[in-house]
Amino acid sequence: MRTTQKNRQRAPWEDLQATAGNGLLDRRAFLRGGAAFAAAMTGYALAKPVSAEPLADDPWSKVPGDASPPYEQRSRFEEKAVGRTLDNTKGELRTSRARTPHHLLNGTITPNGLHFIIVHAGTPGIDPDRHLLVIHGLVQRPLVFTLEALARYPMVSRMAFVECGGNSAPLFSNEPIQASVQALHGLVSCSEWTGVLLSTLLEETGVDPKAKWLIAEGADAPALSRSVPLTKAMDDAMVALYQNGERVMPGNGYPMRLLLPGWEGNMNVKYLRRLKLTDQPGMSFYEARTYAQILPSGKAYQFYFFQEVKSFITHPSPGLAMKGQGFYEISGVAYSGNGRIAKVMVSADGGKTWAQAALQEPVLPKAFTRFRVPWRWDGSPAVLQSRAWDEGGNVQPTRAQIVARRGETKSVPPVTGFPSQHFNGITSWAIERNGEVKHVYA
Amino acid sequence: MRTTQKNRQRAPWEDLQATAGNGLLDRRAFLRGGAAFAAAMTGYALAKPVSAEPLADDPWSKVPGDASPPYEQRSRFEEKAVGRTLDNTKGELRTSRARTPHHLLNGTITPNGLHFIIVHAGTPGIDPDRHLLVIHGLVQRPLVFTLEALARYPMVSRMAFVECGGNSAPLFSNEPIQASVQALHGLVSCSEWTGVLLSTLLEETGVDPKAKWLIAEGADAPALSRSVPLTKAMDDAMVALYQNGERVMPGNGYPMRLLLPGWEGNMNVKYLRRLKLTDQPGMSFYEARTYAQILPSGKAYQFYFFQEVKSFITHPSPGLAMKGQGFYEISGVAYSGNGRIAKVMVSADGGKTWAQAALQEPVLPKAFTRFRVPWRWDGSPAVLQSRAWDEGGNVQPTRAQIVARRGETKSVPPVTGFPSQHFNGITSWAIERNGEVKHVYA
Repeated sequence: MRTTQKNRQRAPWEDLQATAGNGLLDRRAFLRGGAAFAAAMTGYALAKPVSAEPLADDPWSKVPGDASPPYEQRSRFEEKAVGRTLDNTKGELRTSRARTPHHLLNGTITPNGLHFIIVHAGTPGIDPDRHLLVIHGLVQRPLVFTLEALARYPMVSRMAFVECGGNSAPLFSNEPIQASVQALHGLVSCSEWTGVLLSTLLEETGVDPKAKWLIAEGADAPALSRSVPLTKAMDDAMVALYQNGERVMPGNGYPMRLLLPGWEGNMNVKYLRRLKLTDQPGMSFYEARTYAQILPSGKAYQFYFFQEVKSFITHPSPGLAMKGQGFYEISGVAYSGNGRIAKVMVSADGGKTWAQAALQEPVLPKAFTRFRVPWRWDGSPAVLQSRAWDEGGNVQPTRAQIVARRGETKSVPPVTGFPSQHFNGITSWAIERNGEVKHVYA
Repeated sequence: MRTTQKNRQRAPWEDLQATAGNGLLDRRAFLRGGAAFAAAMTGYALAKPVSAEPLADDPWSKVPGDASPPYEQRSRFEEKAVGRTLDNTKGELRTSRARTPHHLLNGTITPNGLHFIIVHAGTPGIDPDRHLLVIHGLVQRPLVFTLEALARYPMVSRMAFVECGGNSAPLFSNEPIQASVQALHGLVSCSEWTGVLLSTLLEETGVDPKAKWLIAEGADAPALSRSVPLTKAMDDAMVALYQNGERVMPGNGYPMRLLLPGWEGNMNVKYLRRLKLTDQPGMSFYEARTYAQILPSGKAYQFYFFQEVKSFITHPSPGLAMKGQGFYEISGVAYSGNGRIAKVMVSADGGKTWAQAALQEPVLPKAFTRFRVPWRWDGSPAVLQSRAWDEGGNVQPTRAQIVARRGETKSVPPVTGFPSQHFNGITSWAIERNGEVKHVYA
């Protein structure tokens, strides 16, 4: 017998060598598994002893269940508890945001019902058989593509995150806003996207060597328009037709969107109807105003394309109170517009000491990587942080470093004004003695 | 200028060296890309020339769109066109199947709304706060786990297909049944599953060395029960809590299911409420009857666990008629319960000659791998086939090889009787001159 009840009376993880302060455990042993360590890692207080025979039947075991619908629906318990938070429920003529509940998800994929969206005049109801994509401007042959024509081109699939440039903007506030990870970081999601590489379509149209940019335009009411360097278009840009296997969802651009892996969400133009090749950027509304953030120096971050290396802890996080001391898994997501995540370090003492997190394989470029660290919480106050590195050697900055460069905002909700864009600093969660999780600056 | 309109007048792919009969093109060049080849590969007839300025606005561009819901819904055009096919719409007290529409999907992930399901007395409506998982029998400490307790254990995520042992059963018919890939192969799907390794939980309970099997039981009305060798339980078995990021869907076992990557779907017990460790299998209904297929020799395939190496073409396939000659992408899915897919070969001439397909990275073990081959259809009859190899060196058999060993059934729909299980042979689609796609034996 591998273990005896007797030697399980003691909390097994008390024998462990923590790799960083406040109870962070050895992630190599976590990865390796093994009888002794696995037994040690799991806390004795999580599961309860039971006399199982006879096992009582629950009410749902005694009656026939429900019929299956053509499209599976979530459990009614999930419908009540798990949803995107909306800031424009009446569909008024202004921007609408729907934020992903990262604290209630796990893994790396965001399910299609919970992908974040931002639309600026609601979600258009496009008939896919009447929607056209035109490629024109500085090309050899202006062409128009139906959805049916596009479906015949060679396709590729890739995991990719999409993140709004304004995600995490509340962390520019001069005081830590008490809100969930959904409110703070809910404008980023990750899916498997399938479609036609833009380079394939541009080979069809031919490209005039004078072309340096393209202007992408959506078929939504504001005709949202953004300029994209041709180098990105010829690299990994995609006209995405499928999201996690099925057609792109309405809020994500049905029936097609531009996907610019790793670049600012707003540039990934939804309801894509036009790509016009030009010799200069179009200086459209969003690139000339919203996303051209003015710095304290008076200069602006124009054409700030990359979503830089970033991570945040989703479990635990505000709203997920700790249920007594013992074993927990700290986990979260890391990603970089620059490529693969190379390393994630986690601290339980506000950044004094760090333990290396396990990265869930496969680690894919410009996609969510789930990181995990085993943790023994002894019931005393702790401050959790995660910090990511990407394969380009870029490191996630501290909040202080970002604020020193770009300033901060007054913490009177709603947070308004600049700076509001491209916050990728470290997030800190304080664990209080009663188990509550608070947003702090540490 | 990279290409001129003049030299695009000719079908560029006419210059290509096909790598196999009936127009299959070079998949290495397909992977490599490059200006000349990409231009060549794409057919001139797919997109139409256009004078783009001014670009007319579509009706949906002229009005505000819809408000966003907390859980994004599909386009109404998708709701009409894309769904699982059901064989028990009234919820009668018998088995219900819902099949995945592979011909309308792309990529490798099956979205949660369209994952296949089989339930034997409907879908139970389980309250997750009242559901318990008991592990008992030949263990040191019988334990009961709430969902909240399970959520604190170390988790892992992995892509894995789940396939019913009866998937593809219509191909045992002595005549090719005219049906879609959804009807023929719709009882397999692929998701990212996240949960707790069963080995982690068994370290908590401790395992009596006399234990060789475990009996997994669901909380559905039939208390579906299957026996699993302990070696599998200690290998990669998982108690899955999340499916593509969100909680497991009702039809897939909400709030938790057993996941046995690569093994017969029925064994991946849903609504998991009990794991009883034993020294012998339980000889439950499904393992003693339905899935113990009797062979022509009189012997039975008892404990036939693996879903063996398999592939099928989804595009084109019956119901997706060809729209005139020219370029098409042939694509489909391949998978093996034995590990990674090593190679997929595709034929357009009924198996006389073969071209190697491109495999979409990342190629993951016991998960869907999307394969793709560029194809020039010249309008004449063709027979498309795919054949997969896995990293264990196993090769997908022909239908004739399977039937020689296991027999076939009479083609009077509905197909009944044995053989009906574990068909992993080659599927053949005939392309007729008018572009229709038919199921044939070739």
